[in-house]
Amino acid sequence: MAYELYYWPGIQGRGEFVRLALEEAGADYIDVARRSTEEGGGIPALMAFLERKDIAHPPFAPPFLKDGDVLIGQTAAILLYLGDRHELAPKDAAQRLWTHQIQLTIADLVGEAHDAHHPLSADLYYEEQKPEALRRASDFRERRIPRFLGWFEDILARNPKGDGHLVGKAITYADLSLFQCVEGLLYAYPRSMKRRLAQFPRVAALHQGVARRPRIRAYLASERRLPFNEEGIFRCYPELDR
Amino acid sequence: MAYELYYWPGIQGRGEFVRLALEEAGADYIDVARRSTEEGGGIPALMAFLERKDIAHPPFAPPFLKDGDVLIGQTAAILLYLGDRHELAPKDAAQRLWTHQIQLTIADLVGEAHDAHHPLSADLYYEEQKPEALRRASDFRERRIPRFLGWFEDILARNPKGDGHLVGKAITYADLSLFQCVEGLLYAYPRSMKRRLAQFPRVAALHQGVARRPRIRAYLASERRLPFNEEGIFRCYPELDR
Repeated sequence: MAYELYYWPGIQGRGEFVRLALEEAGADYIDVARRSTEEGGGIPALMAFLERKDIAHPPFAPPFLKDGDVLIGQTAAILLYLGDRHELAPKDAAQRLWTHQIQLTIADLVGEAHDAHHPLSADLYYEEQKPEALRRASDFRERRIPRFLGWFEDILARNPKGDGHLVGKAITYADLSLFQCVEGLLYAYPRSMKRRLAQFPRVAALHQGVARRPRIRAYLASERRLPFNEEGIFRCYPELDR
Repeated sequence: MAYELYYWPGIQGRGEFVRLALEEAGADYIDVARRSTEEGGGIPALMAFLERKDIAHPPFAPPFLKDGDVLIGQTAAILLYLGDRHELAPKDAAQRLWTHQIQLTIADLVGEAHDAHHPLSADLYYEEQKPEALRRASDFRERRIPRFLGWFEDILARNPKGDGHLVGKAITYADLSLFQCVEGLLYAYPRSMKRRLAQFPRVAALHQGVARRPRIRAYLASERRLPFNEEGIFRCYPELDR
Protein backbone atom coordinates (compact mmCIF):
# COMPACT_ATOMS: atom_id res chain seq x y z
CA MET A 1 0.00 0.00 0.00
CA ALA A 2 1.29 3.47 -0.83
CA TYR A 3 2.28 5.81 1.95
CA GLU A 4 0.09 8.88 2.31
CA LEU A 5 1.94 12.11 3.05
CA TYR A 6 -0.10 15.03 4.36
CA TYR A 7 1.44 18.47 4.02
CA TRP A 8 0.60 21.97 2.83
CA PRO A 9 0.48 21.75 -0.96
CA GLY A 10 2.09 25.08 -1.87
CA ILE A 11 5.44 24.87 -0.11
CA GLN A 12 8.42 22.60 0.40
CA GLY A 13 8.45 23.35 4.13
CA ARG A 14 9.02 20.55 6.62
CA GLY A 15 7.26 18.12 4.30
CA GLU A 16 10.23 18.28 1.95
CA PHE A 17 12.46 16.41 4.40
CA VAL A 18 9.99 13.53 4.25
CA ARG A 19 9.60 13.75 0.47
CA LEU A 20 13.37 13.51 -0.03
CA ALA A 21 13.51 10.34 2.07
CA LEU A 22 10.57 8.79 0.19
CA GLU A 23 12.12 9.72 -3.15
CA GLU A 24 15.58 8.38 -2.29
CA ALA A 25 13.93 5.16 -1.09
CA GLY A 26 11.96 4.85 -4.33
CA ALA A 27 8.88 4.44 -2.13
CA ASP A 28 5.37 4.57 -3.47
CA TYR A 29 3.58 7.55 -1.91
CA ILE A 30 0.66 9.87 -2.41
CA ASP A 31 1.18 13.53 -1.64
CA VAL A 32 -2.44 13.86 -0.58
CA ALA A 33 -2.94 17.62 -0.41
CA ARG A 34 -1.30 18.12 -3.80
CA ARG A 35 -4.03 16.11 -5.45
CA SER A 36 -6.99 18.09 -6.69
CA THR A 37 -10.03 18.49 -4.46
CA GLU A 38 -11.94 16.41 -7.06
CA GLU A 39 -9.54 13.54 -6.34
CA GLY A 40 -10.04 13.99 -2.59
CA GLY A 41 -6.95 16.16 -2.16
CA GLY A 42 -6.16 19.80 -1.52
CA ILE A 43 -6.10 21.66 1.75
CA PRO A 44 -9.66 20.46 2.58
CA ALA A 45 -8.34 16.87 2.77
CA LEU A 46 -5.56 17.98 5.10
CA MET A 47 -7.88 19.99 7.34
CA ALA A 48 -10.50 17.24 7.42
CA PHE A 49 -7.87 14.81 8.61
CA LEU A 50 -6.67 17.18 11.36
CA GLU A 51 -10.25 17.57 12.56
CA ARG A 52 -11.03 13.86 12.78
CA LYS A 53 -12.09 12.79 16.26
CA ASP A 54 -11.61 9.06 15.72
CA ILE A 55 -7.80 9.04 15.65
CA ALA A 56 -5.92 7.78 18.71
CA HIS A 57 -2.66 9.51 17.73
CA PRO A 58 -3.71 12.83 16.20
CA PRO A 59 -0.82 14.85 14.79
CA PHE A 60 -0.17 18.30 16.24
CA ALA A 61 0.57 19.76 12.80
CA PRO A 62 1.59 18.73 9.27
CA PRO A 63 3.60 16.96 8.01
CA PHE A 64 2.24 13.58 8.97
CA LEU A 65 2.56 10.23 7.29
CA LYS A 66 0.02 7.44 7.07
CA ASP A 67 1.29 3.92 6.54
CA GLY A 68 -1.81 1.73 6.68
CA ASP A 69 -2.92 1.86 10.31
CA VAL A 70 0.16 3.74 11.47
CA LEU A 71 -0.02 7.52 11.62
CA ILE A 72 3.09 9.54 12.51
CA GLY A 73 3.62 13.26 12.98
CA GLN A 74 6.77 15.30 13.65
CA THR A 75 9.30 15.31 10.82
CA ALA A 76 12.10 13.71 12.82
CA ALA A 77 9.81 10.92 14.07
CA ILE A 78 8.64 10.22 10.50
CA LEU A 79 12.25 9.98 9.35
CA LEU A 80 13.11 7.67 12.26
CA TYR A 81 10.33 5.40 11.04
CA LEU A 82 11.24 5.58 7.34
CA GLY A 83 14.95 5.22 8.07
CA ASP A 84 14.42 1.76 9.53
CA ARG A 85 12.17 0.61 6.71
CA HIS A 86 14.20 1.83 3.75
CA GLU A 87 17.82 1.49 4.87
CA LEU A 88 18.15 5.23 5.30
CA ALA A 89 19.65 4.77 8.76
CA PRO A 90 22.16 2.31 10.22
CA LYS A 91 20.82 -0.81 11.95
CA ASP A 92 23.30 -0.55 14.82
CA ALA A 93 21.45 1.02 17.76
CA ALA A 94 24.11 3.59 18.69
CA GLN A 95 24.60 4.70 15.08
CA ARG A 96 20.85 4.83 14.55
CA LEU A 97 20.45 7.11 17.60
CA TRP A 98 23.37 9.27 16.44
CA THR A 99 21.63 9.73 13.07
CA HIS A 100 18.50 10.79 14.91
CA GLN A 101 20.47 13.15 17.14
CA ILE A 102 21.85 14.85 14.02
CA GLN A 103 18.31 15.10 12.63
CA LEU A 104 17.09 16.80 15.80
CA THR A 105 19.87 19.37 15.43
CA ILE A 106 18.78 19.89 11.82
CA ALA A 107 15.23 20.42 13.13
CA ASP A 108 16.58 23.16 15.41
CA LEU A 109 18.26 24.82 12.42
CA VAL A 110 15.01 24.62 10.43
CA GLY A 111 13.05 26.23 13.27
CA GLU A 112 15.57 29.06 13.48
CA ALA A 113 15.54 29.52 9.68
CA HIS A 114 11.79 30.08 9.93
CA ASP A 115 11.98 32.43 12.87
CA ALA A 116 14.64 34.55 11.13
CA HIS A 117 11.81 36.04 9.00
CA HIS A 118 9.07 35.54 11.62
CA PRO A 119 10.61 36.44 14.98
CA LEU A 120 7.41 37.71 16.62
CA SER A 121 4.62 35.45 15.43
CA ALA A 122 3.93 32.94 12.70
CA ASP A 123 0.45 34.46 12.57
CA LEU A 124 1.64 37.88 11.42
CA TYR A 125 2.90 38.66 7.94
CA TYR A 126 6.59 39.20 7.40
CA GLU A 127 5.81 42.83 6.56
CA GLU A 128 4.35 43.27 10.04
CA GLN A 129 7.62 42.25 11.73
CA LYS A 130 10.25 43.45 9.27
CA PRO A 131 12.46 45.56 11.59
CA GLU A 132 12.57 42.66 14.03
CA ALA A 133 13.31 40.22 11.21
CA LEU A 134 16.25 42.37 10.14
CA ARG A 135 17.78 41.98 13.59
CA ARG A 136 17.01 38.30 14.03
CA ALA A 137 18.15 37.39 10.51
CA SER A 138 21.42 39.19 11.11
CA ASP A 139 22.00 37.09 14.22
CA PHE A 140 20.98 33.92 12.37
CA ARG A 141 23.24 34.66 9.39
CA GLU A 142 26.32 35.80 11.28
CA ARG A 143 26.22 33.68 14.40
CA ARG A 144 23.88 30.71 14.09
CA ILE A 145 24.47 29.52 10.49
CA PRO A 146 28.26 29.30 11.04
CA ARG A 147 27.65 27.50 14.33
CA PHE A 148 25.42 24.87 12.72
CA LEU A 149 27.50 24.46 9.56
CA GLY A 150 30.66 24.28 11.65
CA TRP A 151 29.19 21.40 13.63
CA PHE A 152 28.17 19.51 10.49
CA GLU A 153 31.65 20.08 9.03
CA ASP A 154 33.18 18.80 12.24
CA ILE A 155 31.14 15.62 12.44
CA LEU A 156 31.82 14.91 8.75
CA ALA A 157 35.54 15.29 9.45
CA ARG A 158 35.28 12.98 12.47
CA ASN A 159 33.28 10.24 10.75
CA PRO A 160 35.61 7.23 10.94
CA LYS A 161 34.10 5.88 7.70
CA GLY A 162 35.04 9.00 5.77
CA ASP A 163 33.67 12.48 5.24
CA GLY A 164 31.28 11.64 2.42
CA HIS A 165 28.38 11.02 4.79
CA LEU A 166 27.30 12.25 8.20
CA VAL A 167 27.01 8.70 9.57
CA GLY A 168 28.86 5.62 8.37
CA LYS A 169 29.61 5.10 4.70
CA ALA A 170 26.10 5.09 3.26
CA ILE A 171 23.37 7.64 2.74
CA THR A 172 21.03 8.37 5.65
CA TYR A 173 17.99 10.60 6.02
CA ALA A 174 20.28 13.04 7.86
CA ASP A 175 22.39 13.51 4.70
CA LEU A 176 19.22 14.19 2.70
CA SER A 177 18.05 16.70 5.30
CA LEU A 178 21.38 18.50 5.42
CA PHE A 179 21.25 18.76 1.62
CA GLN A 180 17.82 20.38 1.92
CA CYS A 181 19.03 22.86 4.54
CA VAL A 182 21.97 23.95 2.42
CA GLU A 183 19.71 24.24 -0.61
CA GLY A 184 17.26 26.33 1.40
CA LEU A 185 19.92 28.57 2.90
CA LEU A 186 21.42 29.17 -0.55
CA TYR A 187 17.97 30.20 -1.75
CA ALA A 188 17.28 32.44 1.23
CA TYR A 189 20.73 34.02 1.57
CA PRO A 190 22.37 33.74 -1.88
CA ARG A 191 24.85 36.53 -1.30
CA SER A 192 26.22 35.54 2.10
CA MET A 193 25.77 31.75 1.85
CA LYS A 194 27.96 31.23 -1.21
CA ARG A 195 30.79 32.91 0.62
CA ARG A 196 29.95 31.10 3.85
CA LEU A 197 29.79 27.66 2.27
CA ALA A 198 33.38 28.00 1.04
CA GLN A 199 34.42 27.77 4.71
CA PHE A 200 32.76 24.35 5.03
CA PRO A 201 34.03 22.26 2.13
CA ARG A 202 32.76 18.92 3.44
CA VAL A 203 29.24 20.28 3.87
CA ALA A 204 29.41 21.77 0.36
CA ALA A 205 30.61 18.43 -1.07
CA LEU A 206 27.85 16.50 0.68
CA HIS A 207 25.29 18.96 -0.70
CA GLN A 208 26.57 18.38 -4.23
CA GLY A 209 26.84 14.63 -3.74
CA VAL A 210 23.23 14.29 -2.68
CA ALA A 211 22.06 16.40 -5.63
CA ARG A 212 23.84 13.96 -8.00
CA ARG A 213 22.18 10.82 -6.65
CA PRO A 214 20.06 9.41 -9.48
CA ARG A 215 16.72 9.38 -7.67
CA ILE A 216 17.25 12.77 -6.07
CA ARG A 217 18.38 14.29 -9.38
CA ALA A 218 15.28 12.89 -11.11
CA TYR A 219 13.08 14.18 -8.30
CA LEU A 220 14.60 17.67 -8.34
CA ALA A 221 13.98 17.87 -12.10
CA SER A 222 10.38 16.67 -11.78
CA GLU A 223 7.19 18.59 -11.17
CA ARG A 224 6.92 16.83 -7.82
CA ARG A 225 9.62 19.20 -6.53
CA LEU A 226 7.95 22.49 -5.72
CA PRO A 227 10.08 25.60 -6.16
CA PHE A 228 11.13 27.55 -3.09
CA ASN A 229 8.90 30.55 -2.48
CA GLU A 230 8.11 33.23 0.08
CA GLU A 231 5.47 31.16 1.87
CA GLY A 232 7.84 28.46 3.09
CA ILE A 233 10.56 28.12 5.69
CA PHE A 234 13.42 29.31 3.50
CA ARG A 235 12.45 32.67 2.01
CA CYS A 236 14.48 35.02 -0.13
CA TYR A 237 14.14 38.58 1.16
CA PRO A 238 17.21 40.44 -0.14
CA GLU A 239 17.13 42.89 2.78
CA LEU A 240 17.78 39.96 5.16
CA ASP A 241 20.90 38.90 3.23
CA ARG A 242 23.46 41.60 3.92
CA MET B 1 28.43 2.71 36.29
CA ALA B 2 26.66 5.98 37.02
CA TYR B 3 25.35 8.07 34.15
CA GLU B 4 27.08 11.41 33.70
CA LEU B 5 24.77 14.30 32.86
CA TYR B 6 26.35 17.44 31.45
CA TYR B 7 24.32 20.62 31.68
CA TRP B 8 24.63 24.25 32.76
CA PRO B 9 24.78 24.17 36.56
CA GLY B 10 22.70 27.26 37.36
CA ILE B 11 19.41 26.50 35.62
CA GLN B 12 16.80 23.80 35.18
CA GLY B 13 16.69 24.40 31.42
CA ARG B 14 16.53 21.48 29.04
CA GLY B 15 18.63 19.41 31.42
CA GLU B 16 15.65 19.21 33.77
CA PHE B 17 13.73 16.95 31.39
CA VAL B 18 16.60 14.48 31.63
CA ARG B 19 16.94 14.88 35.40
CA LEU B 20 13.25 14.10 35.91
CA ALA B 21 13.58 10.87 33.93
CA LEU B 22 16.71 9.84 35.85
CA GLU B 23 15.03 10.64 39.17
CA GLU B 24 11.81 8.77 38.36
CA ALA B 25 13.92 5.80 37.26
CA GLY B 26 15.92 5.91 40.49
CA ALA B 27 19.02 5.86 38.30
CA ASP B 28 22.48 6.56 39.63
CA TYR B 29 23.81 9.71 37.97
CA ILE B 30 26.36 12.44 38.39
CA ASP B 31 25.29 15.97 37.50
CA VAL B 32 28.83 16.78 36.42
CA ALA B 33 28.77 20.57 36.12
CA ARG B 34 27.06 20.93 39.52
CA ARG B 35 30.06 19.42 41.22
CA SER B 36 32.71 21.85 42.38
CA THR B 37 35.65 22.60 40.12
CA GLU B 38 37.86 20.91 42.75
CA GLU B 39 35.91 17.69 42.15
CA GLY B 40 36.33 18.08 38.38
CA GLY B 41 32.96 19.76 37.91
CA GLY B 42 31.66 23.22 37.15
CA ILE B 43 31.32 24.95 33.83
CA PRO B 44 35.01 24.27 33.03
CA ALA B 45 34.24 20.52 32.95
CA LEU B 46 31.33 21.13 30.60
CA MET B 47 33.33 23.38 28.29
CA ALA B 48 36.33 21.04 28.29
CA PHE B 49 34.09 18.21 27.18
CA LEU B 50 32.54 20.28 24.37
CA GLU B 51 36.03 21.15 23.14
CA ARG B 52 37.35 17.60 23.05
CA LYS B 53 38.56 16.59 19.62
CA ASP B 54 38.64 12.84 20.25
CA ILE B 55 34.88 12.26 20.34
CA ALA B 56 33.21 10.66 17.35
CA HIS B 57 29.74 11.92 18.26
CA PRO B 58 30.28 15.41 19.67
CA PRO B 59 27.12 17.01 21.02
CA PHE B 60 25.98 20.30 19.47
CA ALA B 61 25.02 21.73 22.86
CA PRO B 62 24.14 20.68 26.42
CA PRO B 63 22.40 18.68 27.73
CA PHE B 64 24.25 15.50 26.89
CA LEU B 65 24.44 12.20 28.69
CA LYS B 66 27.36 9.83 28.97
CA ASP B 67 26.62 6.18 29.62
CA GLY B 68 29.99 4.46 29.54
CA ASP B 69 31.09 4.64 25.92
CA VAL B 70 27.77 6.00 24.70
CA LEU B 71 27.40 9.78 24.43
CA ILE B 72 24.04 11.28 23.49
CA GLY B 73 22.98 14.86 22.88
CA GLN B 74 19.55 16.39 22.18
CA THR B 75 17.04 16.12 25.00
CA ALA B 76 14.50 14.06 23.06
CA ALA B 77 17.18 11.59 21.91
CA ILE B 78 18.44 11.20 25.48
CA LEU B 79 14.89 10.47 26.64
CA LEU B 80 14.38 7.97 23.82
CA TYR B 81 17.47 6.17 25.12
CA LEU B 82 16.53 6.33 28.81
CA GLY B 83 12.92 5.40 28.10
CA ASP B 84 13.98 2.01 26.74
CA ARG B 85 16.36 1.31 29.60
CA HIS B 86 14.16 2.33 32.52
CA GLU B 87 10.65 1.41 31.43
CA LEU B 88 9.75 5.03 30.87
CA ALA B 89 8.35 4.25 27.42
CA PRO B 90 6.23 1.39 26.06
CA LYS B 91 8.03 -1.55 24.43
CA ASP B 92 5.55 -1.76 21.57
CA ALA B 93 7.15 -0.02 18.55
CA ALA B 94 4.14 2.09 17.54
CA GLN B 95 3.48 3.24 21.13
CA ARG B 96 7.18 3.94 21.63
CA LEU B 97 7.23 6.15 18.52
CA TRP B 98 4.02 7.89 19.62
CA THR B 99 5.66 8.71 22.97
CA HIS B 100 8.61 10.17 21.09
CA GLN B 101 6.32 12.15 18.78
CA ILE B 102 4.69 13.72 21.85
CA GLN B 103 8.15 14.52 23.23
CA LEU B 104 9.12 16.28 19.99
CA THR B 105 5.99 18.43 20.29
CA ILE B 106 6.97 19.23 23.88
CA ALA B 107 10.41 20.22 22.54
CA ASP B 108 8.68 22.66 20.17
CA LEU B 109 6.78 24.16 23.10
CA VAL B 110 10.00 24.50 25.10
CA GLY B 111 11.72 26.29 22.20
CA GLU B 112 8.81 28.70 21.92
CA ALA B 113 8.76 29.29 25.69
CA HIS B 114 12.39 30.39 25.43
CA ASP B 115 11.87 32.58 22.40
CA ALA B 116 8.93 34.34 24.09
CA HIS B 117 11.50 36.30 26.15
CA HIS B 118 14.30 36.13 23.56
CA PRO B 119 12.65 36.68 20.17
CA LEU B 120 15.62 38.34 18.48
CA SER B 121 18.71 36.56 19.73
CA ALA B 122 19.78 34.26 22.53
CA ASP B 123 23.00 36.30 22.60
CA LEU B 124 21.30 39.54 23.64
CA TYR B 125 19.94 40.23 27.11
CA TYR B 126 16.20 40.24 27.64
CA GLU B 127 16.44 43.98 28.36
CA GLU B 128 17.83 44.50 24.86
CA GLN B 129 14.74 42.97 23.24
CA LYS B 130 11.97 43.85 25.63
CA PRO B 131 9.47 45.54 23.26
CA GLU B 132 9.81 42.57 20.92
CA ALA B 133 9.43 40.14 23.82
CA LEU B 134 6.19 41.88 24.82
CA ARG B 135 4.74 41.15 21.40
CA ARG B 136 6.05 37.62 21.08
CA ALA B 137 5.04 36.65 24.63
CA SER B 138 1.54 37.94 23.98
CA ASP B 139 1.28 35.68 20.93
CA PHE B 140 2.75 32.75 22.88
CA ARG B 141 0.41 33.25 25.82
CA GLU B 142 -2.81 33.87 23.90
CA ARG B 143 -2.39 31.68 20.88
CA ARG B 144 0.35 29.09 21.29
CA ILE B 145 -0.05 27.94 24.91
CA PRO B 146 -3.76 27.14 24.37
CA ARG B 147 -2.89 25.35 21.15
CA PHE B 148 -0.31 23.13 22.84
CA LEU B 149 -2.31 22.52 26.02
CA GLY B 150 -5.41 21.82 23.93
CA TRP B 151 -3.52 19.14 22.05
CA PHE B 152 -2.26 17.51 25.25
CA GLU B 153 -5.77 17.61 26.69
CA ASP B 154 -7.10 16.01 23.53
CA ILE B 155 -4.61 13.15 23.45
CA LEU B 156 -5.18 12.48 27.15
CA ALA B 157 -8.92 12.28 26.45
CA ARG B 158 -8.31 9.95 23.49
CA ASN B 159 -5.94 7.59 25.31
CA PRO B 160 -7.78 4.25 25.19
CA LYS B 161 -6.11 3.24 28.48
CA GLY B 162 -7.51 6.26 30.32
CA ASP B 163 -6.67 9.92 30.73
CA GLY B 164 -4.19 9.52 33.57
CA HIS B 165 -1.22 9.27 31.22
CA LEU B 166 -0.33 10.53 27.76
CA VAL B 167 0.49 7.03 26.51
CA GLY B 168 -0.88 3.73 27.81
CA LYS B 169 -1.56 3.25 31.48
CA ALA B 170 1.90 3.80 32.94
CA ILE B 171 4.22 6.74 33.37
CA THR B 172 6.45 7.70 30.43
CA TYR B 173 9.12 10.34 29.98
CA ALA B 174 6.50 12.36 28.07
CA ASP B 175 4.34 12.62 31.20
CA LEU B 176 7.36 13.83 33.18
CA SER B 177 8.17 16.39 30.50
CA LEU B 178 4.60 17.68 30.34
CA PHE B 179 4.68 18.08 34.12
CA GLN B 180 7.84 20.17 33.75
CA CYS B 181 6.29 22.35 31.05
CA VAL B 182 3.20 23.08 33.15
CA GLU B 183 5.42 23.78 36.16
CA GLY B 184 7.53 26.15 34.08
CA LEU B 185 4.56 27.92 32.51
CA LEU B 186 2.99 28.40 35.95
CA TYR B 187 6.25 29.97 37.10
CA ALA B 188 6.60 32.19 34.05
CA TYR B 189 2.96 33.23 33.68
CA PRO B 190 1.37 32.82 37.14
CA ARG B 191 -1.49 35.20 36.45
CA SER B 192 -2.69 33.91 33.11
CA MET B 193 -1.69 30.24 33.47
CA LYS B 194 -3.77 29.51 36.55
CA ARG B 195 -6.84 30.68 34.67
CA ARG B 196 -5.72 28.90 31.52
CA LEU B 197 -5.05 25.58 33.19
CA ALA B 198 -8.66 25.43 34.42
CA GLN B 199 -9.66 24.94 30.78
CA PHE B 200 -7.51 21.80 30.56
CA PRO B 201 -8.47 19.64 33.54
CA ARG B 202 -6.72 16.48 32.31
CA VAL B 203 -3.43 18.33 31.85
CA ALA B 204 -3.84 19.87 35.31
CA ALA B 205 -4.53 16.46 36.84
CA LEU B 206 -1.51 14.91 35.15
CA HIS B 207 0.65 17.75 36.44
CA GLN B 208 -0.54 17.11 39.99
CA GLY B 209 -0.26 13.35 39.63
CA VAL B 210 3.38 13.50 38.56
CA ALA B 211 4.20 15.86 41.45
CA ARG B 212 2.80 13.28 43.88
CA ARG B 213 4.91 10.36 42.64
CA PRO B 214 7.21 9.38 45.52
CA ARG B 215 10.53 9.77 43.70
CA ILE B 216 9.50 13.00 42.00
CA ARG B 217 8.15 14.44 45.25
CA ALA B 218 11.41 13.58 47.01
CA TYR B 219 13.40 15.08 44.16
CA LEU B 220 11.40 18.31 44.09
CA ALA B 221 11.95 18.72 47.84
CA SER B 222 15.69 18.05 47.55
CA GLU B 223 18.58 20.39 46.87
CA ARG B 224 19.12 18.59 43.57
CA ARG B 225 16.09 20.49 42.23
CA LEU B 226 17.27 23.96 41.30
CA PRO B 227 14.70 26.73 41.64
CA PHE B 228 13.38 28.39 38.51
CA ASN B 229 15.15 31.67 37.80
CA GLU B 230 15.54 34.36 35.15
CA GLU B 231 18.46 32.64 33.42
CA GLY B 232 16.52 29.59 32.30
CA ILE B 233 13.89 28.75 29.72
CA PHE B 234 10.87 29.60 31.88
CA ARG B 235 11.34 33.10 33.27
CA CYS B 236 8.99 35.20 35.32
CA TYR B 237 8.80 38.71 33.93
CA PRO B 238 5.48 40.15 35.16
CA GLU B 239 5.19 42.50 32.17
CA LEU B 240 5.01 39.44 29.88
CA ASP B 241 2.07 37.99 31.84
CA ARG B 242 -0.87 40.24 31.06
